[in-house]
Order: sequence, then C-alpha cells, then structure tokens
Amino acid sequence: MSASGSSINTAHVTQSSPAIENAIDRSAPNFTAAAEKDETTYFDTNPKPAELEEFSRIAEEFVNLHCSHQRRVVLVTSGGTTVPLENQTVRFIDNFSAGTRGATSAEYFLEAGYAVIFLHRQFSLLPYSRHYSHSTNCFLDFLAEAPTDGSRHTIVAREEYTAKMISVLRKYKHAKREKLLLLLPFTTITSYLFLLRELAMKMRPLGGKALFYLAAAVSDFFVPRERMAEHKIQSGEFAEKDGEMEFINPAGPGSGKKLIIDLDPVPKFLKRLVESWAPEGMIVSFKLETDPKLLIKKCTMALKRYSHHLVIGNLLQHRKYEVVFVDQESTSWLRLPQNAEEETNGGKLPGKQNLEIEALIVPEVVRRHGAMIWHVVAATRSSIGGLPD
Amino acid sequence: MSASGSSINTAHVTQSSPAIENAIDRSAPNFTAAAEKDETTYFDTNPKPAELEEFSRIAEEFVNLHCSHQRRVVLVTSGGTTVPLENQTVRFIDNFSAGTRGATSAEYFLEAGYAVIFLHRQFSLLPYSRHYSHSTNCFLDFLAEAPTDGSRHTIVAREEYTAKMISVLRKYKHAKREKLLLLLPFTTITSYLFLLRELAMKMRPLGGKALFYLAAAVSDFFVPRERMAEHKIQSGEFAEKDGEMEFINPAGPGSGKKLIIDLDPVPKFLKRLVESWAPEGMIVSFKLETDPKLLIKKCTMALKRYSHHLVIGNLLQHRKYEVVFVDQESTSWLRLPQNAEEETNGGKLPGKQNLEIEALIVPEVVRRHGAMIWHVVAATRSSIGGLPD
Repeated sequence: MSASGSSINTAHVTQSSPAIENAIDRSAPNFTAAAEKDETTYFDTNPKPAELEEFSRIAEEFVNLHCSHQRRVVLVTSGGTTVPLENQTVRFIDNFSAGTRGATSAEYFLEAGYAVIFLHRQFSLLPYSRHYSHSTNCFLDFLAEAPTDGSRHTIVAREEYTAKMISVLRKYKHAKREKLLLLLPFTTITSYLFLLRELAMKMRPLGGKALFYLAAAVSDFFVPRERMAEHKIQSGEFAEKDGEMEFINPAGPGSGKKLIIDLDPVPKFLKRLVESWAPEGMIVSFKLETDPKLLIKKCTMALKRYSHHLVIGNLLQHRKYEVVFVDQESTSWLRLPQNAEEETNGGKLPGKQNLEIEALIVPEVVRRHGAMIWHVVAATRSSIGGLPD
Repeated sequence: MSASGSSINTAHVTQSSPAIENAIDRSAPNFTAAAEKDETTYFDTNPKPAELEEFSRIAEEFVNLHCSHQRRVVLVTSGGTTVPLENQTVRFIDNFSAGTRGATSAEYFLEAGYAVIFLHRQFSLLPYSRHYSHSTNCFLDFLAEAPTDGSRHTIVAREEYTAKMISVLRKYKHAKREKLLLLLPFTTITSYLFLLRELAMKMRPLGGKALFYLAAAVSDFFVPRERMAEHKIQSGEFAEKDGEMEFINPAGPGSGKKLIIDLDPVPKFLKRLVESWAPEGMIVSFKLETDPKLLIKKCTMALKRYSHHLVIGNLLQHRKYEVVFVDQESTSWLRLPQNAEEETNGGKLPGKQNLEIEALIVPEVVRRHGAMIWHVVAATRSSIGGLPD
C-alpha cells in the first residue's frame, strides 16, 4: 500500500514543522527583562500548579541526595509551553517543539556524570525512550513473539534492533537505579514558570554545582488570569428561541462571528533566575533564529540583557548539526563533521556512526561549567588565604 | 524519591486536562452548516497539504483492496486539529485531545471485521501502541535484558506484562499483515479538512459499506490565509538603533505590547460530507458537552442541522463510562457496568476485567451500520422486483 509495502503507513508530514522563512516572527518585540515587582505580580496573580508542593518535595530529596555525593546537577528544560485560552481550556496556544534537544542533551549529561532534573512538556520526548517514541515506526514494530523453553510464549526485541535496545535499556536502568534522573512534566507557561522558580531555589544548596540548561520553547505571550472574562466570543451569546439554543449576533447578520484573543507578553524571568533564584549556578539559554545575519547579534543582546553565562545560538534550518556558543569573551561554533551532516539531512547512512550535535554541545558545556566551578573555588581559597585578588 | 520508590517519576499532572466547569465555552456560537459556496471558498483560498496526493493514492488502493473483499471500511478521525498562527508558525492554537476515543474505537472496529482508515493528529494515541505510549510509565519499564542460549543477550518483555503484550502484538501484526489498518496523520485544521474531503470521495466505491466515525476534536476557529499579513504584533516593529535591533512601540512606553489574534469560524463541513462527499455512507459525529441539561438538546440540534445518521453525545466528566446515542427516532444510553465505572475512575482494580466504553459503543454502531446496509439492499431489491415501497 505504501512505499514500504505495508498498509500501516505513517507518511512523512511536512506541515508539522514550521516553514523556515516564516517560522519566527521577526517583528516580535524583545521585551525588557523582568524586575522584582514583575515577579511578585506574576506569581501573585496567576494560579500555582496543583503539583508544585509535590514536585518541590521530590526535587529537594533529589538535590539533597546528589549534594551529599558532591555530584553536579543540571536542570534541563525541554519541549514547548502552552497558553490556555481561559474559559475554554479545551483550546490553547502551543509552541512547536518535540523536545529533541532537551531529551538528547539529558542523556549526554548523564553520561558526563551529572544528575538530571528533566523539566519537560508532558508527552514530549524523554531521555532513552525518545529512541522508540514519536517515531514513524510504531514501537510494536521493534518486537516479536518467540517461544520460551516451555510451552509459553514471550515477547522479544527483533534481532536487528537488539544491540541498540540493550545499550539504551542499560543506560536507562542505570539512571533509574542510581536515582540520577528526575522527570517532572509541565503543560502551561504558568506551570513552567512556577516550577522553574521553585526548582532553582531548591537547587541552591548545590552552589556552583548547579547548571541550568534552558532548552524549552517558552511562550512569549499569555492570557493574564484577571482578564479571563474578556476571553469569550466578542460579538454574541446564546439565547433560548423556540426551545432551542441559538447564536445571536448583536451586530446583525453578516457582521462576522469572530474570536478575538488578546494576549500579554510573558515577563522575561531569566534575569530573575540569574539575580535572585539561582545566583551561584551556571545558566545557559538557547536562541533559535532563522536569519543567519541576526543570530550572533541576538545572542549577544540576550547575554547583555540577562547577564547570564552562555547563550547557545542555532538556526532553525541547521539546528541538528551546527550551533554557536556566545559568552562574554568569545563566539565559537560547534559543527558536526561533514558526513554526519549529510546523515542528519538525508537519513541514516549504513555503516556510519549516527552522530548527534548534542554529543558535542554537552561536553563543551560541561567543560565550561567545570572551569566556572574551579574559578569560584580558586577565588574562595585565594580570599581565605588572604592573597590579593 | 517518589511514591513508587523510584526517582524516575512522572507525577500526575492535573492541568493537562481541562477543568470541567469551564472547559467548553458555552457562549460559542453554533454556526450554520456550510453550503457549496463555502466549500469552494475554503478549499480555493487555503493551501492544500503537501501530502494530499500521496495519501489520496494510498487510500484509493486501500479502498479498492477492501472493496474487492466486500469488506466494510470505517474512517475514524482522532485527536485535535491545530490552527497555526500565520507568519509565526512556531505558535499554534490546539484542541485538547489525546486521541483515546479514536484509537480505542479503531481496535474494536478491527475486531468487528472492518478495515480502518485512521486519520489522526500526528503523535496522538494510535491503535495498539496506545497501550504503551502516553503512559505514566516509560515503555522501557516493560522490558528487561535476558541471556539467550548462547553468550549473547536479548531484550524480553517482563513476565508480568507478557500476556497482555502478546495479545496486543498479535492483533497489531494481524492488522498489518492483512492490510486492515491505514494510519494517516494530520496536524492543522486545513490539512484535516482537505484530507476528510479527499478520503470521503475515495471511499465512494464502498457505497453503504463506508462508515464515518468522526471522533476528532476539530477547531471552531481559524486564521484565513488571506489575512496572514494582519497576524503580526499590532503595535510595534523592529528598528536599527545604535547597531542593535530594538522594539519600537509607536503608542509610546507603557501603552502595552500585546498580541492580538483575530480568528474566523471554520465552516461546518459536516453538511457537505452528508450531502456531497459521502452521500451513501453512514455518518456518526460526536458531541462533547459539560452541562447534562444541554447534552441531548445539542445532539438533536446537530442531527437536525446536518441531517446525518447518528450523534454520540458525551459529557466531558463521564466520557469514559457513559455515552448517549441520538438518532432521528430515539435516544438511548450506553453505560459501563457499575464496577467498571469505579475502575475507570479510581484506577485498575485487581481481578476485575478492565472494560472500556468503546467495547459497547463500537458494536452498537456496527449493528446500526449493518441495519442501514440491509435497508438499502432491501429497498433496492424491492425496487428492482417492482414491489411497492
């Protein structure tokens, strides 16, 4: 029935990825960073998520455990946040993101010896299971039925997939056994912001050993709680007529029955994270652009505005094989080797290793984090020893 | 770290489900059914999805195959449609739906001997794999490593999951081998509507053997293509200033930097499906409400407006164990037995069968579809035989 000869067919769908040329609205304003009063206003007027206390408690235990082992802990944020359209929350505004960058990076942080808090959009890609979910194949395609020694049957991985699945499963079970990976889901922008603040504050005991790797696609606009009543259909209402509900348009027929959604900018809390929530941790943000001419400029602006440690810039069209690290001192590119690039673009080539750009990004972030920790330790020792700065 | 004693923890998140009391905007208008000119306008002015021709060809082969076997074919639609916010398609409006009703129903249609075209939101739940995806458990938790006879290792299902997994895998492989299940994904409302029309027309050779089971959560509002230019930030633009890009607000500081989204109603194409695209097939739509007093009334209105065969009504809060069938003659309720209801609400109880409401819905739809086919055949014979109507 299909190219692969099977009628169970999930054809390639192009519309789920944004078109490059208009994916990012270049007219969107760069709002100024949030100040303390914005924080108070936002968190006072928007409802905290029901799971906040539970997640806070779990995170505290997690941090304490790894603190006691002198282990570094990274908070990886991943996937897109949603903006519910209030009073009709079956509808919401979403941000395009499968969570690939975050889920992949989390695996490399675990390999580098970090404990990982993975704050992710519910049902987005997860470390390890990402290899078998959101795939064009159903994961059942990886499995087969096999007889056991007795008369019963069992399920086994098909032979061609076994080697990779063993490798993935071992890493997953290791992370689970050693309590190295904490999965915490969010859905809305409000939940995300409450959780980011809470987790950052729970991570304070880690001091410089805390790393923030903010790969989530965060909404720029939201519907403030207090304007909820305004977010209904503007021009009509139901009325009983001849025993049936009918739509009444006060402006008369033909005047249009539109839905108007009026959104406010989300305060830019990265500044608060840097200054107040996590003053000792290393903070890494991402910048996704489409115009090569603007990329570095936008990264530099973000760094200047929020005073954090590192911006990782990437172009939507090259994000799987090229990124740029921008910090206060320098700008440096990380690129996959040419053959890996072809591989990423054109599907997997047999016999070549399937390289991921995160295999380069994460070790470089880890190296810089190590250098930052070392500098702080050196500065403290120097200060204790009474040596000049 | 968590209730289950593992630090790999996906806690229950409540905000991903809409709150019952305000999930459906009761002030939303019931637009009148689309006429032929609305069809022409919509499909002429909105871009067709890139995959339309490919899916059309695949569906045609699928229909021809099952036509030749005199098999009934059901088109199940499932999951929510999105409304991209044009010129910035990293953002979109979405409809809350995991696709549970559609994916579960598709399995029961296959069991009833139907071939199934499963038109679903990309990455929503799928028949069979639904048992292991979107779960609070990672699917890797179902698997373990085991030694084989030789020195190599393999992956097996953990014993406690084997029986169910064998049952699911057998059904999945059967559907695949016999080409009984065609999975076609959509993302946007526009893709959904183009595909619905195309598939309905390709299903015409099936005559009365075609069934339309429209369980997708379809957007009520969209951004028309020709208004794309209007859908940018209203009050500002970028300008070069001191070598940096900056947001200029023409209304002056403090006047607000808002995003206004202005949406049009989606034409109600169910009428076109009934009258023009699939005049011989049986058409079943769903109505999701929150107010018990309105449910039957709204179902009856939909039936009257679109003149199709059956509306299945359900309340958001009871949708997993109670539905109502409304047709031209009668209104009848289907309910899970009381113990199953407790089970559905409170999680699985050991020793009780895990009943799903779709196990009742689908056989009843199949029975009615059979009756409709029989009536048509009887009427044709009677007409050929010259008997009075």
